[in-house]
Amino acid sequence: MRYVLGAKCVKCGKEYAAVPDLTTCTCGGILDIQYDYAAIRRDFSPKDLAACSDWSMWRYRPFLPVEERSSPPPLRVGWSPLYRADRLAGELGLNTLYIKDDGLNPTASLKDRASALAVVKAREAGADTIACSSTGNAASSLAGNAAAAGLATYIFVPARAPKGKVAQLRIFGSTVISVDGSYEDTFELSKAAIGRWGWYNRNAAINPYLSEGKKTVTLEILEQLHWQAPDYIALSVGDGCTIAGAWKGLKDLYAAGFIDKLPRLIAVQAEGCCPLNRAIQTGQPWQPMEENTLADSIAVGVPRNPDKALHAIRESHGVAVNVSDEEILSAMRLLGRTQGVFGEPAGVTGTAGVKKALELGLISPDSTVVSIVTGNGLKDVQNGIKAAGEPMLVKPDMDALLEAFARRGICPATSTRKETAHE
Amino acid sequence: MRYVLGAKCVKCGKEYAAVPDLTTCTCGGILDIQYDYAAIRRDFSPKDLAACSDWSMWRYRPFLPVEERSSPPPLRVGWSPLYRADRLAGELGLNTLYIKDDGLNPTASLKDRASALAVVKAREAGADTIACSSTGNAASSLAGNAAAAGLATYIFVPARAPKGKVAQLRIFGSTVISVDGSYEDTFELSKAAIGRWGWYNRNAAINPYLSEGKKTVTLEILEQLHWQAPDYIALSVGDGCTIAGAWKGLKDLYAAGFIDKLPRLIAVQAEGCCPLNRAIQTGQPWQPMEENTLADSIAVGVPRNPDKALHAIRESHGVAVNVSDEEILSAMRLLGRTQGVFGEPAGVTGTAGVKKALELGLISPDSTVVSIVTGNGLKDVQNGIKAAGEPMLVKPDMDALLEAFARRGICPATSTRKETAHE
Repeated sequence: MRYVLGAKCVKCGKEYAAVPDLTTCTCGGILDIQYDYAAIRRDFSPKDLAACSDWSMWRYRPFLPVEERSSPPPLRVGWSPLYRADRLAGELGLNTLYIKDDGLNPTASLKDRASALAVVKAREAGADTIACSSTGNAASSLAGNAAAAGLATYIFVPARAPKGKVAQLRIFGSTVISVDGSYEDTFELSKAAIGRWGWYNRNAAINPYLSEGKKTVTLEILEQLHWQAPDYIALSVGDGCTIAGAWKGLKDLYAAGFIDKLPRLIAVQAEGCCPLNRAIQTGQPWQPMEENTLADSIAVGVPRNPDKALHAIRESHGVAVNVSDEEILSAMRLLGRTQGVFGEPAGVTGTAGVKKALELGLISPDSTVVSIVTGNGLKDVQNGIKAAGEPMLVKPDMDALLEAFARRGICPATSTRKETAHE
Repeated sequence: MRYVLGAKCVKCGKEYAAVPDLTTCTCGGILDIQYDYAAIRRDFSPKDLAACSDWSMWRYRPFLPVEERSSPPPLRVGWSPLYRADRLAGELGLNTLYIKDDGLNPTASLKDRASALAVVKAREAGADTIACSSTGNAASSLAGNAAAAGLATYIFVPARAPKGKVAQLRIFGSTVISVDGSYEDTFELSKAAIGRWGWYNRNAAINPYLSEGKKTVTLEILEQLHWQAPDYIALSVGDGCTIAGAWKGLKDLYAAGFIDKLPRLIAVQAEGCCPLNRAIQTGQPWQPMEENTLADSIAVGVPRNPDKALHAIRESHGVAVNVSDEEILSAMRLLGRTQGVFGEPAGVTGTAGVKKALELGLISPDSTVVSIVTGNGLKDVQNGIKAAGEPMLVKPDMDALLEAFARRGICPATSTRKETAHE
């Protein structure tokens, strides 16, 4: 790890060697991986990336805390598409909007970036079993990435996890413990089990390597924008690890001279579960909240990474905005109808927040914004149907079709385009 | 369309100009797009591809029947990963196996390749509305790709279509007609409606451009294998359009001098619905069958593209193999557990067929095989759970966990790896 200096507690500043199974500081604080940016700047530049043919998160190896001898895990993670979303921008009244569809990762969420890193670090630690607790996506991404690498997994999820995520876990051969309780309960049980059996710990707020994987999402966004920083990057916030990772990636690029301006973060939480945004908005320390939202991935009443997340939002001069479940469902329809992107509820929450921030005048319509879709809507089909409704059921004949159209006020225009004869 | 000569009926040989809204021949036969391979060979080589930075299906434009002035549609389709699957090959007793995970396309199936092409041709035809009937994936891919391009869609699916596909359709803003009948009924109603309202027709067996989109899957596989043809390419077969497209791609590459050997196809159908394979196995003309399989995407009792499909299997000296629903569910678990790939039932049917073909001695264990996973398992979560079972539900305390483990005979080993102290 040529460019890694070590790890440092974000709370007390204590320093640690970057061994592969680092967890938290003795003071309870979360660790942050430290890099030698002068050396990265000397050895590595956007030109090297332009010549790199590895179209995955591993193209950013100088920014990643893995041993030079470690090979990347089997699944192809990262380099998800960044779409210029002019039609959606038009509807929102925003100058320029990009959608980063991270639901196109191998297990269909951004969390694959962290899990791929966890698999490498677990192998470096000599572990053959990895465990984690998760609202669902960290779990299914760990299960898939570990299965492909031949590692066993023990996964703890709250019983409320959507069926799609549970199906992934089971198909990937994990031992799945569905916990009849909250995410907090689930986390505590996983912690006790990891302590008892000594599995490699992939809990994102415990293991400081994971946000290093997550940060590749912003490394990619900036490369896809040819190193021109947007004004804002919007994303949903639950545990706080993803927004912390996103900010770390931006700061890495800034420190290494790849970009000369830092975007501001738009941190979006659900109204019914917004402990971190409430802390930003009130200036008070964060307090636990109920987990009252249908966006399961961010239904986190006791965020596990509050320090890094709050620091990221504040240091970026960020915007904290909360959205209702109805606004989340509406954003699912909006992204689908205008851009052909189907996100899960937490996946579209960032976009719902962009809309809300514009309505509240928190950001200017002249802005350039990137919104990260963090997970695929196929993971939570029930809420997809809830957002968009069931289709019309019709008997297989034309009269039945005409009647069904009439009942719904659907009047298809007969095509007026020029008929092109066959011959 | 510099390299397109025209279209030719596969039944009567009648030739047509390649106008954008071509359908079938006056004799009822299906058309095939014809290319000037000598010109392609003169202008285009693997070296050009090595220098091409478009990592999507559009890197193969000289092989695609679209106007030079047409821009690709918005969603990033193609260049899905090809994984070397050594762990799965080991379990099957096969020398070399690759998995092409086409479930990682934007709407999570191979059909995005055809729908992207349909969107381009519809725009060339000046159409603002596209319609199709489909078992589900062609539908959801059309809905997503058309939404991103700002085109309206009318989609006909059988009522049995899995919820994941229906949710996609609704989220993408399609007018969805769920037909209370078989796929055959659905197809006929769509045909009548398209005739009545003159929408652009994306029915794959009617519109000859669509298999030209699908063929990009084999163009990619061969490029990913550095133009070294495998012995076999395995895939599931329903309507017959996908296997016809796969073969077209291989023949294109052969005719243009990119490869010097043609792989053989392994055509896999469900035992309960195998009209095309039955024709191959018996040497008799194909006959309709019941649609008796849980693999909805290939539950096609009256295949719409029998001529091209049967020709492809025969011309490639292909292998026809049928698998039971239990073998399909087993392949879902096998791919998930060994490779971290979650395919829908029809998506893993190709892999189930590879296993079966080895067991029956139809292919040699020394072979090199590529198996195409045609759709993501998240589209059909119900069958994912059916394949892999529900997780254990546990109260949030250690005693409950220990009891649940004991009841299932799970004895986690305590980690023996070296403890790395923090300090």
